[in-house]
Amino acid sequence: MKEKLKVAVLASGRGSNFKALAEACAGEGYPGDIAILIVDNPDAGALQVASEMGIDSVVFDCGPKKGSMTLESSERMVEICNEKGVGLVCLAGFMRIVKGRLMDDYVGRMINIHPALLPNFKGLNAQKQALDYGVKYSGCTVHFVDKGIDTGPIILQKIVSVEQGDTEETLSARILVEEHKTYPEAVRLMAEGRVRIDGRRVVIKGHD
Amino acid sequence: MKEKLKVAVLASGRGSNFKALAEACAGEGYPGDIAILIVDNPDAGALQVASEMGIDSVVFDCGPKKGSMTLESSERMVEICNEKGVGLVCLAGFMRIVKGRLMDDYVGRMINIHPALLPNFKGLNAQKQALDYGVKYSGCTVHFVDKGIDTGPIILQKIVSVEQGDTEETLSARILVEEHKTYPEAVRLMAEGRVRIDGRRVVIKGHD
Repeated sequence: MKEKLKVAVLASGRGSNFKALAEACAGEGYPGDIAILIVDNPDAGALQVASEMGIDSVVFDCGPKKGSMTLESSERMVEICNEKGVGLVCLAGFMRIVKGRLMDDYVGRMINIHPALLPNFKGLNAQKQALDYGVKYSGCTVHFVDKGIDTGPIILQKIVSVEQGDTEETLSARILVEEHKTYPEAVRLMAEGRVRIDGRRVVIKGHD
Repeated sequence: MKEKLKVAVLASGRGSNFKALAEACAGEGYPGDIAILIVDNPDAGALQVASEMGIDSVVFDCGPKKGSMTLESSERMVEICNEKGVGLVCLAGFMRIVKGRLMDDYVGRMINIHPALLPNFKGLNAQKQALDYGVKYSGCTVHFVDKGIDTGPIILQKIVSVEQGDTEETLSARILVEEHKTYPEAVRLMAEGRVRIDGRRVVIKGHD
């Protein structure tokens, strides 16, 4: 049997995408395995999820600057990923911009999920941005992480229609349902070695 | 029988969206009627379509500056629209940014179709922009015209998936199929008085 891809998940919040990934990894025949959960604050709900599912986790002090991380914490994340044999880093609601050695060492092996049809509505509060703009469709995007904010090559996107009565909460909830399906699908494609970056376009073997 | 909404179409090119609108208007029970085709150059293929369909057309000299129009031509367009009792101006591949009196007098009564999921890929060559970025979905957008470029409130959007083998031509062709359905649908909604602008959001009566 082929060895599973070892995945590190970085999260800051309740960890619903982490949970979706962990549940997928627990499924029979899934080609990925969560090696470690890394969070940047001890209050992250994701820690509880990891504990319940028997997944190792670690809390890193990434520094006091909101949205940023110290180079030292980046260094230590790489060390723990190397120790664990991590082949893919998944950002899942991680509220800091990755930089330093983690960015350099995992380029092409680090992905993120964003609750909008990128390049529309990058950055924070994407669902609110979509509602405020008045688009009729939004969705979610799994993309490679590069040095920009939500700018890397796109692996998968899913569409969610915006309904006239939507609030930020209702739209976010419907997008989240798609996120929970799309992120495990993307990790599977990565684990199966079917994802190739061609310039900015991502080609997926076996997709038409 | 309720009076039909009189529509002016502004075009610069082959006029495929003009044709789609004209054919819709020729259909039984459709609540709109093409009052006039306005083009900015005598080579526009749309003129031939108008001639074949028995629709009045006029060629305006909008000035030598590419992408812009003279205030005088804007003034004359309003005059002809007023003469014809036009209640809705539809831009259909019109390659000039509307300004002057046409912009002022028809604010809220002038719409455009754009071959992308706005606010993604505004401006020229939207299909190529989408391919170059590597999005998995694009589409088309019918929106109100405001003083920005492709920035007005969105009435309708339709999704078109981007296939891995797509070229600018194949993607444009598939988007165009949707444009030809979506633009007449939007004009119908306008003609039926079902479209209301609420801030940036467009609310459509009868849609969920």
